[in-house]
Amino acid sequence: MAEVTTVPDVMTRARDLVAPAMRRSVDLLNPELRNIAAYHLGWVDALGRSTGSDGGKGLRPALAVLSAEAAGAEGRFGVPGAVAIELVHNYSLIHDDVMDVDRERRHRPTVWAVFGVAKAIIVGDALAALAQQVVLDPSILVGDGLALEGHQAALLLADATAKMIAGQSQDMAFEDREHVSFDECLAMEAGKTGALLGCAAAIGAVLVGAPAATVRALDQFGVELGISFQAVDDLLGIWGDSKTTGKPSWSDLRQHKKSLPVTAALSSGERGVDELLELLATDQLSEAQIERCAELVERLGGRDATNDLADSRLRAALAALDGAEIPDDARRQFVEIAHFVVERQF
Amino acid sequence: MAEVTTVPDVMTRARDLVAPAMRRSVDLLNPELRNIAAYHLGWVDALGRSTGSDGGKGLRPALAVLSAEAAGAEGRFGVPGAVAIELVHNYSLIHDDVMDVDRERRHRPTVWAVFGVAKAIIVGDALAALAQQVVLDPSILVGDGLALEGHQAALLLADATAKMIAGQSQDMAFEDREHVSFDECLAMEAGKTGALLGCAAAIGAVLVGAPAATVRALDQFGVELGISFQAVDDLLGIWGDSKTTGKPSWSDLRQHKKSLPVTAALSSGERGVDELLELLATDQLSEAQIERCAELVERLGGRDATNDLADSRLRAALAALDGAEIPDDARRQFVEIAHFVVERQF
Repeated sequence: MAEVTTVPDVMTRARDLVAPAMRRSVDLLNPELRNIAAYHLGWVDALGRSTGSDGGKGLRPALAVLSAEAAGAEGRFGVPGAVAIELVHNYSLIHDDVMDVDRERRHRPTVWAVFGVAKAIIVGDALAALAQQVVLDPSILVGDGLALEGHQAALLLADATAKMIAGQSQDMAFEDREHVSFDECLAMEAGKTGALLGCAAAIGAVLVGAPAATVRALDQFGVELGISFQAVDDLLGIWGDSKTTGKPSWSDLRQHKKSLPVTAALSSGERGVDELLELLATDQLSEAQIERCAELVERLGGRDATNDLADSRLRAALAALDGAEIPDDARRQFVEIAHFVVERQF
Repeated sequence: MAEVTTVPDVMTRARDLVAPAMRRSVDLLNPELRNIAAYHLGWVDALGRSTGSDGGKGLRPALAVLSAEAAGAEGRFGVPGAVAIELVHNYSLIHDDVMDVDRERRHRPTVWAVFGVAKAIIVGDALAALAQQVVLDPSILVGDGLALEGHQAALLLADATAKMIAGQSQDMAFEDREHVSFDECLAMEAGKTGALLGCAAAIGAVLVGAPAATVRALDQFGVELGISFQAVDDLLGIWGDSKTTGKPSWSDLRQHKKSLPVTAALSSGERGVDELLELLATDQLSEAQIERCAELVERLGGRDATNDLADSRLRAALAALDGAEIPDDARRQFVEIAHFVVERQF
């Protein structure tokens, strides 16, 4: 898990397809909302000046575009799904930053930090509604060609969004609890991260009317990949390089976050658990105490357990793909994405 | 506009149909979210103890149930639409209270005041997603019978939600501006309140597959009624009896709200406008100054203009209904609701 990988071609290709459609969608908002959304997406700075950037890496768009191709259709038919998922993902980030009182994301001030809490809430709400509009009426973004299954795609998206929100609410509930098991943490992260990635991997196929078995296999691929992705995220949240993650080192420990490595360590039953629990219950941890936390989580097996989970869920994702009847080319690109996502950023 | 009216039968009837379906829907949430939603809806108190109440008056549910009947179907087929709209309406109230920093609603502490801002945001998000699930898969709530048009209904709901959010964002933008015209205020309120009432009056008909002309007429009826409703609300926000409204008297003036009466008064061009502008720009108004504001708004014609608007939009709503091919019984009940809504609470 330490090699540097290059961005798969499909992610660049998908971004080129999806970026103009994202702009067209956000243009449907009124000027107040549009400017704030454009800031969050990295298109403009806080003063509204263009940054020349098209925003993020585009993991979800790539999955959605490939998903249509996996069902034997052109990738462009997955674009309404890709846009809808990007909108939901970004609305959840904007609201998350308010809820977590996070002032920075991707090395920039968060929406609420720039525009205030009220505007962060309303722009998130606007992106959520826009996501449904785009997928229910995909003709907004895809001109001629296939008649797309907007109804089924919207249902898939609404279900995934509901699971994501349930996961977020569990995450918040964990903050109020002393004990959270590794399995509870895993279930929470399957909702919080897995559901939307599952939706991304399946929505293109749903839009073009793929058989249920294909849709199920792709969804499972995405969910497992999402858990693997989140496991890596949780590792980065403690041991990630602050220059790469854009967060201070041991960031999740500073925030007393009950992530996978921490809950695994606490569930180990070994000597050191009590010390770790006591540290995590301490309000303001010193740098030395935070370092000691990281050391304990590692010694109690939290790092290894999370690494193992990332690996086993990556294998489960690939196995789900093996069972699906999809073209070899799409399969190859899904595999490329999967490796890229899980082997990133160390 | 001063008589006391009794609650129309259809509102009681619709509540009896919709209340159990609301409970069934909210039961789909996880326990953390469910408890907070149940508190907001008035079903339980802050400690989770049942209040024995089924919540609000049910204007929107009544419109949605009647809407199915207007298309010649049984009212129960409008229930998924009624539930979806109640969920959207309530999610917007929960988020609004956070954005406006309002600590009280319906004589009870607001969700954020009891559970904190983060939980208010997440439960609002959850209700929004649930609304889409319910309408996209109406079979959750309606057993046998007609195959309902979930796709078209979801699109109607998503469009109305987007308009409502755009209206709310305009309302917020008005706070940062010195001058807002009566027409701008009216356009904002058509979005903020009219869109969802239009959707309520049309969604039952859409679900049961009514002709486009009927859907359009019902939608227009609801939008006009919504503007009339909001005009009355703005009157109550200044001159309403605090015991009935649950807010302090001159509440909107205390908050410097640029409502219909205020923008109408400011647009009058008469003597007193400058004094009113100056008062509205003053940070902490004394009781005497607030009383003077109310007097000025009235003297500058703001109260009459808003009363006129409430009347003319009620007539426009009834005219839209006249043009629709719907059963007399449904028409009669729509008219009853319209009068009740506009003549309430003085």
